[in-house]
This record gives sequence, C-alpha cells and structure tokens, in this order.
Amino acid sequence: VSRVLVTGASGFIGRHAVTALAERGFEVHVAGRGSVPGVPLAATHRVDLLAPDAADAVIRAVAPSHLVHLAWYDQPGAVWTSTENVRWVEASLALVRAFAAAGGRRLVMAGTCAEYDWAHGFCSEGVTPLAPATLYGRSKHALHTVVAGLADECGLSLAWARVFFVYGPHEHPSRLVAGLVRSLLGGEPARLSEGSQLRDFLHVEDVGEAFAALADCDVKGPVNVGSGAPTSVRAIAELAGELTARPELLHFGAIPMRPGDPPLVLADRRRLATEVGFTPRFTLRAGLEDTIAWWGEAT
Amino acid sequence: VSRVLVTGASGFIGRHAVTALAERGFEVHVAGRGSVPGVPLAATHRVDLLAPDAADAVIRAVAPSHLVHLAWYDQPGAVWTSTENVRWVEASLALVRAFAAAGGRRLVMAGTCAEYDWAHGFCSEGVTPLAPATLYGRSKHALHTVVAGLADECGLSLAWARVFFVYGPHEHPSRLVAGLVRSLLGGEPARLSEGSQLRDFLHVEDVGEAFAALADCDVKGPVNVGSGAPTSVRAIAELAGELTARPELLHFGAIPMRPGDPPLVLADRRRLATEVGFTPRFTLRAGLEDTIAWWGEAT
Repeated sequence: VSRVLVTGASGFIGRHAVTALAERGFEVHVAGRGSVPGVPLAATHRVDLLAPDAADAVIRAVAPSHLVHLAWYDQPGAVWTSTENVRWVEASLALVRAFAAAGGRRLVMAGTCAEYDWAHGFCSEGVTPLAPATLYGRSKHALHTVVAGLADECGLSLAWARVFFVYGPHEHPSRLVAGLVRSLLGGEPARLSEGSQLRDFLHVEDVGEAFAALADCDVKGPVNVGSGAPTSVRAIAELAGELTARPELLHFGAIPMRPGDPPLVLADRRRLATEVGFTPRFTLRAGLEDTIAWWGEAT
Repeated sequence: VSRVLVTGASGFIGRHAVTALAERGFEVHVAGRGSVPGVPLAATHRVDLLAPDAADAVIRAVAPSHLVHLAWYDQPGAVWTSTENVRWVEASLALVRAFAAAGGRRLVMAGTCAEYDWAHGFCSEGVTPLAPATLYGRSKHALHTVVAGLADECGLSLAWARVFFVYGPHEHPSRLVAGLVRSLLGGEPARLSEGSQLRDFLHVEDVGEAFAALADCDVKGPVNVGSGAPTSVRAIAELAGELTARPELLHFGAIPMRPGDPPLVLADRRRLATEVGFTPRFTLRAGLEDTIAWWGEAT
C-alpha cells in the first residue's frame, strides 16, 4: 500500500481526488485547515501550511511516499492578482523540500492553463509558449520551474497537472457555471456576454480522478487536465438553459466581452489520454445534469 | 535622503554595492549575518534571512524606500545544484512581500546570466529565450517571474540585474580568475582547458557600482550587468600570465572542455549603458592588475 498525503483535500477538486485515491488503494492522509466528510481516510492532520515549519512537521508525521499538493489561495476573482499567491509559492516550496528530504518518491502538483500564452489558444505541453499574464499564472509557472529543477536534483518523480476550466458541485457561486445554474434554478435572468469564447470544461469529479490517476502512474512533466473539447460559453449556457427548461432566462450580450479575453483556451489532451490512460466519465451534458441536480438540492 | 536596505552586503558584490550607494548619498542599512568593515553605514541589522519572520522584522525596523537584495546561497560549484537555492527563493519572496507591504518603492535584485538559454550565446533582455539549465538558474528565473508580477500588482519599481562573469578581490579561490591568479603568484602550474570559450567578464567593483546605479534610477525590468566585451578564457589567462610575468605556468588543454559548455555567453550591454547610463571604470587589464595586486597582498 502506498501512502499519499493530500493537501487542499477539503477543496473543490481535493474532495474528489481523495475519494479516487482511496478507491485506487492508497492509504490517504490529508493535511489542511478543513475536514473531508464521508471519505475513508487514514488520518487528518490539522495544519495551516502557511505557518512556518508546518510542512516539515506534517511530512515527518506522515512520511508519505506520494504527495498530491492541491492547496492554494482560492478566492475566485481575487486569485488572479492577490499577493497571497506569493505566500503559496513559498509554502509550496517548503512543503516539497520537506517531502524530498524525507524520501518522498512521487509528487503531483496543481498547475493551471493560465501558465500558457493564451494568444496561442491551443495549449500543448512542451510546445505552446508559457507566458502567464497574471500573478496567479506567474506564481504557478514559477513554482513549476523551481520544483522541476528540485525534482531533477533529488530524483523525485514529478507530474505537473495544468488544470483547465472546472465545474460541478461545490463550485464557488461567483464562478461561471455555478452562477449560471443558480440563476436558472432561481428563475432569475442570467446576464452573459455574447458567449463566443471557446473554453475547455471538465467536471470536477473527473478532475479529481485525473489527479488520482497521475499519482498512480509515473508520467513525468506537465500534463494538461482538460477534456480536449472546445465548448463556447454560449453552448454551455444554452445546454444549461435546456436542462433547466428555462432558456428564456439567458441574456446573451448583456455584458461586454472582457477586453483581451482570448477566443480559444483548449487543452491538448493527448498526454492525459494516452500516457496516463485517463478517460473522463462525464460528458458535458451528464456533467451539467449532475451539477444542476446538486444545486437543486443545495439551494 | 533615500534609505536603502542591502542584503548580502558582506559578500563579493555586496561590499562594493554598499560603498557605491553611500557615495551616491543613500542612507545605507545592511541586513545579514556578516559585517561590512570600512564602510560608513547607518546601521547593521544582524539577521538570518532564512529564519521565519526575519524579513518582516528587519523591514519593519528599517522601513526602507529602496531594497537591494544580493543575499543568496554562495558556494561555488555547489550553487548550481543545491536545494539551498529553493530556500533562498522562499526567503527572497518573503523579503519582497514585506518590503512591498511596508510601502517600499524601488527594488533591485540579483539575477543571473544563467537564466538565459545559453545555446543563443548573445544574451539580450526581452529577446533571448530564458531556459535555465540548472537549479540555480531556474530558481533565479522563477523568483523574477513572481516578483515581476508582485511588483506590477503593488506598484513597486523593479530592476532585475542579470549578472554575468564577475572577478576581482575577495573572489572565492575555487573560481576561475582567482584560482588562476593564485596559481601564477604561487609559482604553480595553472591547468586550463583549451580556453576557446568566450565569456563576459566585469570587475566586481564595477558590478557593485552598477547595482548602486540601478538603485539610483527608475529603469524597470531585466538589465544585464556585463561588460558587453567577449573575452576568451585563453585571453584572460594569457593576460594574467603577462601581468604576473609567469606565462610559462599556463597549461592550455590540460583539462577537457566541459561537455555542453557554450562557446559564447555575452551580455547585450545596451540597457545598462544607455538607459541606466552606466560605464565600467575598469578595463580588463586594469581589473586584472587590481586583482593580482590584491592577491599579492592577501597571500
């Protein structure tokens, strides 16, 4: 049995990663400020990873062979520019140093599609230039730069998951899909942009499962975690309108397109599909149905 | 009077940066583990910047408007691969966060020519791709990535000095020029490679002065700190042989060229010369004479 430590386990993606890791036979330890209800865990370690020496202590206590590091500052909107990103770079480096020093073997970390230069649209690992435009993207990109070098020096096996657009239960209500579904279910008008921008959406349960699959293999380097399917904001909104039977609430063009918003952000999914061998379980329709059902019960 | 805090002030470059800053009228505070003899300082703050909260404390105590951050892990050879580089990324980020939070205005940090992809040889800021091949180069590059984003968000004025090949008094004896001069002065054979590789050498006093000039202006972004003059290892060795009158001690070809050692690493000096307005004081000959005189007294 391999022992994995998961950070950010109570978060949007983390709760699904934990479940998927347990299903794959990992002995799952979690570290963080929150708790994870309903998952068979070996142990929960209450710790603030931003506190000095917190990482050292939890790594010594658990002695994990695998580390899945998902914890990060997580305020939608603010995350793009907050200086909290810098604190999480520091805390993440301290965590990985402690893991390497304690003889850890396999490391999976959460990067972001915002590391890529979005002017290119199609994002392919090792091909598309990296030119993050935000402090969040810069911080993740810089973290990868250092950790990849550290992994080389220490003989750590590192996978760096570049996560694209995630939706599903427990999504923050200020984000696109959650906000849209809540409006439709509440019978309120959904004010949207023209909606032509193409994005790559993946259901959060599939994203969590992808992290477990990454922990459970030896594929190294950056790996996109996306569906590989381009979906316009208009298309996902129309599908939500259809599934809630409230298409008349959709108001396209009610807000302007964000200046500089790229026409396409799409994952090359070949590494995830072929090398990791991962296939998403949810179609966009099934994923939205699941999301709508969850919000229906939650509200 | 502007108040500058200098880290790494007792180091190879730092001692000259401190002198040059004082000459320009700065109120100079230094933070570090060592002391700086013979320089008129406002205050020395004894602090281990790797200790938690050390940065916060010293920034609060000094409240500097300017920060020149030179401190780093500094063991020649080991610096390329040591995990200490990662600790210095963490400590540097904590320092800059504290500086920004305390209302700091102008920040000058030490980067390295090892951030560039050396396959290109000629290193021009904003043109030559960055592809550091070592943990040291990755760490500096990543630090710049985050700090540049932080500076944008906080309205900090940031200059990132990419330092090329530095020589002069107090250089670590295991490094090229110091080792060469010591061999020649000691009457011992100097075992060298074939020596065709072209590098960009600048006397350490000029490097220190360049940091002071960067602190004393508002030029933003990466700025190469180099001479702009390509000098082969053979040429610098032959000049040292001539100046010590011991050319017969030079044994070119006694050791192999390092595999992958690039034929050229040269700074584009236009930003430093034109935008910062900096001109080196030492020619290579004068710089070597100064270095030989210093080692003659030191040994």
